[in-house]
Amino acid sequence: MSGSGFGKLFKITTWGESHGKAIGVVIDGCPSGLSLCEEDIQIFLDRRKPGQNEFTTLRNEDDKVEILSGIFEGKTTGTPISLIVYNKDHHSTDYGNIASCYRPGHADFTYDSKYGFRDYRGGGRSSGRETIGRVAAGAVAIKILKELGITFTSYVSSIGELLIDFDNFSEQEIKTNPFYMPDAECAKKAEEYLKSIMSDSDSVGSSIECIIKGVPAGIGEPAFDKLDALLSQAVMSIGAVKAVEIGDGISVATARGSENNDSFYVNNGKVDKKTNHSGGILGGISDGSDIFLRASIKPTPSIFKEQETVTNDLNDTVLSIKGRHDPIIGPRAVVVVESMCAITILDLMLQNMGTKLENIKKIYN
Amino acid sequence: MSGSGFGKLFKITTWGESHGKAIGVVIDGCPSGLSLCEEDIQIFLDRRKPGQNEFTTLRNEDDKVEILSGIFEGKTTGTPISLIVYNKDHHSTDYGNIASCYRPGHADFTYDSKYGFRDYRGGGRSSGRETIGRVAAGAVAIKILKELGITFTSYVSSIGELLIDFDNFSEQEIKTNPFYMPDAECAKKAEEYLKSIMSDSDSVGSSIECIIKGVPAGIGEPAFDKLDALLSQAVMSIGAVKAVEIGDGISVATARGSENNDSFYVNNGKVDKKTNHSGGILGGISDGSDIFLRASIKPTPSIFKEQETVTNDLNDTVLSIKGRHDPIIGPRAVVVVESMCAITILDLMLQNMGTKLENIKKIYN
Amino acid sequence: MSGSGFGKLFKITTWGESHGKAIGVVIDGCPSGLSLCEEDIQIFLDRRKPGQNEFTTLRNEDDKVEILSGIFEGKTTGTPISLIVYNKDHHSTDYGNIASCYRPGHADFTYDSKYGFRDYRGGGRSSGRETIGRVAAGAVAIKILKELGITFTSYVSSIGELLIDFDNFSEQEIKTNPFYMPDAECAKKAEEYLKSIMSDSDSVGSSIECIIKGVPAGIGEPAFDKLDALLSQAVMSIGAVKAVEIGDGISVATARGSENNDSFYVNNGKVDKKTNHSGGILGGISDGSDIFLRASIKPTPSIFKEQETVTNDLNDTVLSIKGRHDPIIGPRAVVVVESMCAITILDLMLQNMGTKLENIKKIYN
Amino acid sequence: MSGSGFGKLFKITTWGESHGKAIGVVIDGCPSGLSLCEEDIQIFLDRRKPGQNEFTTLRNEDDKVEILSGIFEGKTTGTPISLIVYNKDHHSTDYGNIASCYRPGHADFTYDSKYGFRDYRGGGRSSGRETIGRVAAGAVAIKILKELGITFTSYVSSIGELLIDFDNFSEQEIKTNPFYMPDAECAKKAEEYLKSIMSDSDSVGSSIECIIKGVPAGIGEPAFDKLDALLSQAVMSIGAVKAVEIGDGISVATARGSENNDSFYVNNGKVDKKTNHSGGILGGISDGSDIFLRASIKPTPSIFKEQETVTNDLNDTVLSIKGRHDPIIGPRAVVVVESMCAITILDLMLQNMGTKLENIKKIYN
Repeated sequence: MSGSGFGKLFKITTWGESHGKAIGVVIDGCPSGLSLCEEDIQIFLDRRKPGQNEFTTLRNEDDKVEILSGIFEGKTTGTPISLIVYNKDHHSTDYGNIASCYRPGHADFTYDSKYGFRDYRGGGRSSGRETIGRVAAGAVAIKILKELGITFTSYVSSIGELLIDFDNFSEQEIKTNPFYMPDAECAKKAEEYLKSIMSDSDSVGSSIECIIKGVPAGIGEPAFDKLDALLSQAVMSIGAVKAVEIGDGISVATARGSENNDSFYVNNGKVDKKTNHSGGILGGISDGSDIFLRASIKPTPSIFKEQETVTNDLNDTVLSIKGRHDPIIGPRAVVVVESMCAITILDLMLQNMGTKLENIKKIYN
Repeated sequence: MSGSGFGKLFKITTWGESHGKAIGVVIDGCPSGLSLCEEDIQIFLDRRKPGQNEFTTLRNEDDKVEILSGIFEGKTTGTPISLIVYNKDHHSTDYGNIASCYRPGHADFTYDSKYGFRDYRGGGRSSGRETIGRVAAGAVAIKILKELGITFTSYVSSIGELLIDFDNFSEQEIKTNPFYMPDAECAKKAEEYLKSIMSDSDSVGSSIECIIKGVPAGIGEPAFDKLDALLSQAVMSIGAVKAVEIGDGISVATARGSENNDSFYVNNGKVDKKTNHSGGILGGISDGSDIFLRASIKPTPSIFKEQETVTNDLNDTVLSIKGRHDPIIGPRAVVVVESMCAITILDLMLQNMGTKLENIKKIYN
Repeated sequence: MSGSGFGKLFKITTWGESHGKAIGVVIDGCPSGLSLCEEDIQIFLDRRKPGQNEFTTLRNEDDKVEILSGIFEGKTTGTPISLIVYNKDHHSTDYGNIASCYRPGHADFTYDSKYGFRDYRGGGRSSGRETIGRVAAGAVAIKILKELGITFTSYVSSIGELLIDFDNFSEQEIKTNPFYMPDAECAKKAEEYLKSIMSDSDSVGSSIECIIKGVPAGIGEPAFDKLDALLSQAVMSIGAVKAVEIGDGISVATARGSENNDSFYVNNGKVDKKTNHSGGILGGISDGSDIFLRASIKPTPSIFKEQETVTNDLNDTVLSIKGRHDPIIGPRAVVVVESMCAITILDLMLQNMGTKLENIKKIYN
Repeated sequence: MSGSGFGKLFKITTWGESHGKAIGVVIDGCPSGLSLCEEDIQIFLDRRKPGQNEFTTLRNEDDKVEILSGIFEGKTTGTPISLIVYNKDHHSTDYGNIASCYRPGHADFTYDSKYGFRDYRGGGRSSGRETIGRVAAGAVAIKILKELGITFTSYVSSIGELLIDFDNFSEQEIKTNPFYMPDAECAKKAEEYLKSIMSDSDSVGSSIECIIKGVPAGIGEPAFDKLDALLSQAVMSIGAVKAVEIGDGISVATARGSENNDSFYVNNGKVDKKTNHSGGILGGISDGSDIFLRASIKPTPSIFKEQETVTNDLNDTVLSIKGRHDPIIGPRAVVVVESMCAITILDLMLQNMGTKLENIKKIYN
């Protein structure tokens, strides 16, 4: 039941529905002494804000975040940080048949099965707006990690059949095009491609990659709380994600050991790796090289094409979804993936500090 | 630090190293009243036991499980069940350069980074033998789920470039060939293929699929403890897994919404789906159809080819691994994937019982 | 660090400081289908509201609760319930020497030690106002428990040297006098007594008792999550509590076994007890008789007498606290104790439903 | 259900029944690099071992501990430490009417209510032998804390009406008499007193005090995971404990604020307190002075006097308990209280290291 919390020491709890009064998150366990203001968080929320271009829903939301607790004189106090975003554009009159029938690809049916009824307004709790809390908390985690020298590069690596070309990779480009793609040429093609999808009343899938630099070796726990295991939970828990890959991902299934193993060598007096098939994680623990993760995102389930479905009183019916919907989920989900990765890594870093007796003595003596 | 526990209500804690005295698991929260004896667990452990054919390590272990607590007069009492398997075949003299250098693809370097030193005997805690506890606990979960009508079909779906043909699918066949493949013809080819890999002193990757039938709609929690999110953590936490897919997995990234959405229809007075691209999970909650999961398994990192690496006192070196190693991990990992899925689902089912006020009243009034 | 959460399945997370913008709680895991409106919660908050009589602080707060999520069409949906109370009466200019010196009996020094600095306005997070979130969540738990036939009687049983006389016990009286005492005569004496304490610029301790009727036998977990162990954590976590007793409490230390053991007998075809020295709990599990708990509450640390203390730059100083403070904590804490007991019991009841295999089958088949 | 685990980062899971094959504990999250051998643990187990004098049960158990995992070359590796004690003296034939009737003061009835049946041999899981795992884990925690300069003084402070006189307090004396009392004279009286209780076929209560020196200021979390709250859970979870007091405990209920507040002063350039009514904890966080805790222990419920009770098929009956039982629980529980306090404090210290951003930077940069 209580599945809205994530993390052990840097623990977040998200709440709120698409068309309720507000959406928010409580961060319990943020270290004290971090400079933090609303603008630090807002820039991340703006990356997932709707209505920014013709490829995102027209829903008119400012998504302005307000800090309600945990900050004093511009710094985190170590006590819970409560963040809230009020929902502005409810459009609460116009749900029609959504209330009484189950949209394919959505959680309408499963919520009814679980709870006996559901808040059908805009998907309620299962709406993409649930990720606002994740991104707000992620902004805080990313700020702390940045002070420790850890940075994130996240982007859309494919839209439908269009894949980015790594020869064109430009980190700068990611912020320039509406699809958060690092390849300008591919982004240009995507524009045409998505227009054709939209004119077809359809949607399409995509994939997101996240590269994390600067994580020291030794982060992650053996057995069940492996760094890759918790990253998988974190990223798979984002609504539309259907696959998570670490390092070479599914291609390890066809690789040979002699190809897949990364050779170690001594580089400037430190252990380094000649390749990074492992994606920066060995035995569930960071190895000091870049962490690489890929998520596969399903197409937006809300499409304008007619679809067969059933009503909640068990009659077959045909559904035409109206309203406003992104033809693709990936671009707005990039910052969500990045946020969940940051929260996971920070939490494991906090846990990691008690690993060696010598570190413990360093703090307490 | 405390990453060796998994689950909230059906909670397992595994312990033990490859070459320590014993390996084990404590199951805390097993419901009372279940008939349980050592043989129930042994049949699952036997599926991952080494030394069963020419494609697995020759390590000579019986892997006989002993129940130390939690059972009275043949039934679970509801108190912790402690299960132990003594390590028999230590070969504890022969570690040579493993102690002083980092094997590529293994966790030697990351353990040293994290803890300052490591139990280098056979990989210590990061050995595949750590999964013995998972399988022993999984056997208990699978037995309970079976009483609720939930069953598992798990198998190797590819070895290197060899993929099973679903037209040849035979559940019976899975137990017949040494690779746990449901396609006899593919298994036959795999035999030749693996012999050539072995003669090449190399290893190869594989993939495992798990189909779970009978899970009622409504299992899994919204937000972070989604059924697919926790399955991902559970399966990604198995040593060699580098990707987890649910339903159509990575192919959703290239699909259109109109293809990917599963239409609902009324079937015998109940809600059913015409297709199952979602893999039995919508919005993180089971939808009543089969749950489908795929894991990609990396090649065995221990290969006999010479490999470049470094010593733990930071000198470049060349390593030749000796001893006995499986050329492929997948077949023996099938039962581990199945076990982790079962533990995850049972735990979420126990959590789910408090979801509706009417259910709570059913128990207490 | 993340200590602001309590409970496993009915999980609450509180946030907010005395003089921040707002105070609140998120309830994650509330069962669906419960009728719930703000008034249900407000009546509990009103029991701890300041400014209600001459014996409580004059701080002018309405403490009006607002539901931000988790309710749809008047019923809980099963998703997180976010509750907020805006702080109205900040008086934020007037902290003077509180900012720079450590008040005896308060957490000023320990917060500085832990976090490096603190929100000194009105005690920040360590203020009694932190309990607003507990009471709001407790109101929800109490409502659910009431539907299951479980009720609470909570009251002040002593103020300083004044003890209630059980011969005068009147449940009705509890709501009548300003001290929530069940003995009208004792309450009358307390009025005079407290006036003399106040005129002395001092404060005084008190004790609270809570009787819980209707908890079925079988609630609570063996070992560490015993019902009495978790009740102790829950109640001791309330700011000023310094002792928790179950049943006969400290007097068991002088009792003989033949006195302390409660004889069982058959009463109307059910197992009953002739006495209840155990306070309704045996081996950490409810035995079906009334649960009895007592908490000892320290005197309000904010007193108007001059006190010796130190500044945060390590100089000895003398402190005169000004402003508005209750001379006694007990009366306003009664509803907090009751709330924490309710949250604990509901959480354990939800966990308990998976205890017997037959119950599990009842839900799923 | 899963109540056999305690702690977040230094996490213990105990298992085993009084008359099962063995009893044990898994410690998950012990820092690496600690020298540890079986003798380190054995000396603590010997403090609770039965059969040491005429006032304890004659049960013949060596209670020899064996380390099964987590140690390599004499040091903790950071992976789970599994500790086992085999039960030797089962006497498993002689349970007679215990199997079919409910012993007053014991958990027989509540286990049957919860689980549907129980392991009735010697109390099964609710036996005092369950504390073996706690003490074994406590020994490890105490060893780590000792390296950080934290020490424990624990003793019996009263037996029935006999209270120790603090003027006679001798730490050396604690280990000298069979009652772990720090007052030789009182211990002498206790000997006569207990003989008379025993000749009366009865038992008697007692109390235990624990003083913890050297805990730095700043340990414990605000809100629910307060140091005193978790100590209360930890100690109340020990079988026979019915009250937990911190600092002045129940006497705060009759104290005035001006008496109860501890004045701060500057001592050798550090903040110190003139008195310690708070018992070393303010606002749930350690204040650097000695932590003081008292537990009230009920009389042994197994007495030889005839008692009225019921059978499990609901008939009134009369029970005469035979066998071997301590007339008092306190002395053997001293080391259990100490162990639970140590586990709690160590766990909170590990959590505390991520509190300040500057500490985090100290570890990672």
